[in-house]
Amino acid sequence: MERIKPYVKEIEEALAAIQLPAAPKKLYEPLLYMFDLGGKRIRPALVLLGAELFGRQDRSDVMPLALAIELFHNFTLIHDDIMDNAPLRRGKETVYKKWNTNVGILSGDVLLVKAYQMISRCSESILAEVLAVFNAVAVEVCEGQQLDMDFESLDFISKQEYIDMIRLKTSVLLGCALKMGAICAGANATNQQAIYEYGVNLGIAFQLQDDILDVYGDENRVGKQIGGDILENKKTILLVTLMERLGEKDRGELKITLHRNYDREQDKIQQVMALYREHNVLEEATKLKEYYSNKAFKILESLPVDEGKKVLLNGLSHALLNRLS
Amino acid sequence: MERIKPYVKEIEEALAAIQLPAAPKKLYEPLLYMFDLGGKRIRPALVLLGAELFGRQDRSDVMPLALAIELFHNFTLIHDDIMDNAPLRRGKETVYKKWNTNVGILSGDVLLVKAYQMISRCSESILAEVLAVFNAVAVEVCEGQQLDMDFESLDFISKQEYIDMIRLKTSVLLGCALKMGAICAGANATNQQAIYEYGVNLGIAFQLQDDILDVYGDENRVGKQIGGDILENKKTILLVTLMERLGEKDRGELKITLHRNYDREQDKIQQVMALYREHNVLEEATKLKEYYSNKAFKILESLPVDEGKKVLLNGLSHALLNRLS
Repeated sequence: MERIKPYVKEIEEALAAIQLPAAPKKLYEPLLYMFDLGGKRIRPALVLLGAELFGRQDRSDVMPLALAIELFHNFTLIHDDIMDNAPLRRGKETVYKKWNTNVGILSGDVLLVKAYQMISRCSESILAEVLAVFNAVAVEVCEGQQLDMDFESLDFISKQEYIDMIRLKTSVLLGCALKMGAICAGANATNQQAIYEYGVNLGIAFQLQDDILDVYGDENRVGKQIGGDILENKKTILLVTLMERLGEKDRGELKITLHRNYDREQDKIQQVMALYREHNVLEEATKLKEYYSNKAFKILESLPVDEGKKVLLNGLSHALLNRLS
Repeated sequence: MERIKPYVKEIEEALAAIQLPAAPKKLYEPLLYMFDLGGKRIRPALVLLGAELFGRQDRSDVMPLALAIELFHNFTLIHDDIMDNAPLRRGKETVYKKWNTNVGILSGDVLLVKAYQMISRCSESILAEVLAVFNAVAVEVCEGQQLDMDFESLDFISKQEYIDMIRLKTSVLLGCALKMGAICAGANATNQQAIYEYGVNLGIAFQLQDDILDVYGDENRVGKQIGGDILENKKTILLVTLMERLGEKDRGELKITLHRNYDREQDKIQQVMALYREHNVLEEATKLKEYYSNKAFKILESLPVDEGKKVLLNGLSHALLNRLS
């Protein structure tokens, strides 16, 4: 991650330079608040890296699109936090908690429009292409969020259904970021598609890892309480893998286990983890993560561009996936 | 209105032909529900009329943009109904009431993206221009909605502040619709600006009329209970005109009058109407409506296009403003 710091700094500066009107306050203050919350800025960095991979160094076109991706991402965060009833983000109050739901809805809306304003800053020669890619992915992200909410009330979903959902909800945006960079660099359709697939697979692997670390991570490194997903009965790759492993009768018992009242939170975490152990859930989930990350790395390997150009992206991906590069 | 029926029919058909995925159901069913709620389809019709005014008859470019405007309008309705706690629209449950708030937020979001997908269907030669116009207006509509909500908690707003708000919240979209049609027809910048201003002034006049009819309209023709705005203490051109007429002391008394408990709704309506009468509020509001509608008609009159081409738009505007054409 060290080596992409200059990219992140560049993005932070561009983000800080976005001019927003002073009024109406309740519309625009939440946007500044979100920008200040920080974040790893992985998505906009991928636009820059995607462009450089295919030989475009200058930032016209590239930076506006990077910002469009970041603004869009922040729009989804503001609205998702309302839908998920999330009180905190990065240790601070979410927008709808700090202000109210109406402010969350409307400032999210204007942020989505602002993302499109960024897109409209790029050259006319690539505008139609970029807009079409962005629109398609934006629709998919909404579909993914709806599926995620639908899943919460279902007793059973398959691993494949879960992966299809995270592909839409979180992964296609990474693919989109890289592809937009590639378009800026004039990459051909085959290469555009390849780098998109790379991003999508990377995104899936990263989300699976996130699910795994929530239970098996180092509390200090993960930065949040271990087992939080278990306590919330959140559908993760671990839980859906377990569900697939169990027969229908055992799934009924699992449901009871998940909804029982526990004296101590640790008791529930331990009990679910015992089931994970019994059914080799960690191994299977890790295998799945490896499957998607290997798929990603193979795509990058076979890309017909100068190997030197792949180093940064490769390093970032390995860092994201906790692997030695 | 009779003469634009063929245009409305064309729009209804194009709207019905929009292909939406079957799943996720909760994401897409609300959109079909909204399309089926109907409406006058004035906004998309203005895109068609704007294009024909400047000589473009074919519907490529024009119809996608008309649909973009209609989809955007429906997006604002879905989200505004949440923010305004509105239970009914056109006599049917609003989306967030029929489903829930999360469905309202997310289906609204995807509808906004769908509007941009319609825009991306138009020719590359006008895409950048059209997108910039649409983005700017979309931001303004969000600003207008925020101002409207802000105003609800203020004791006093001036007539000018009120008009600035309705300009943003409702009128600029009419200007945008006409301007998009003009762009499709290759109208020059001066004519684009003129037809935009025409639409904005028409929109302001129409909103002022709407406020007036809520109190002074014919219940059967208006189609809703007379005095509803008074009962809700809604800031309308009538109430803000009254507020401007009153001194600070009398405004304090007005506030008491507005928030008192009444045995019968009619008592409150009668009491506020008595104040309107005493301070010539209806006359002043009507004068203001005339000011904006005259401004609009003068702009149309002076447009350097064939008089025959103005007939439809002129007729529609007179019909909307309850004037004989």
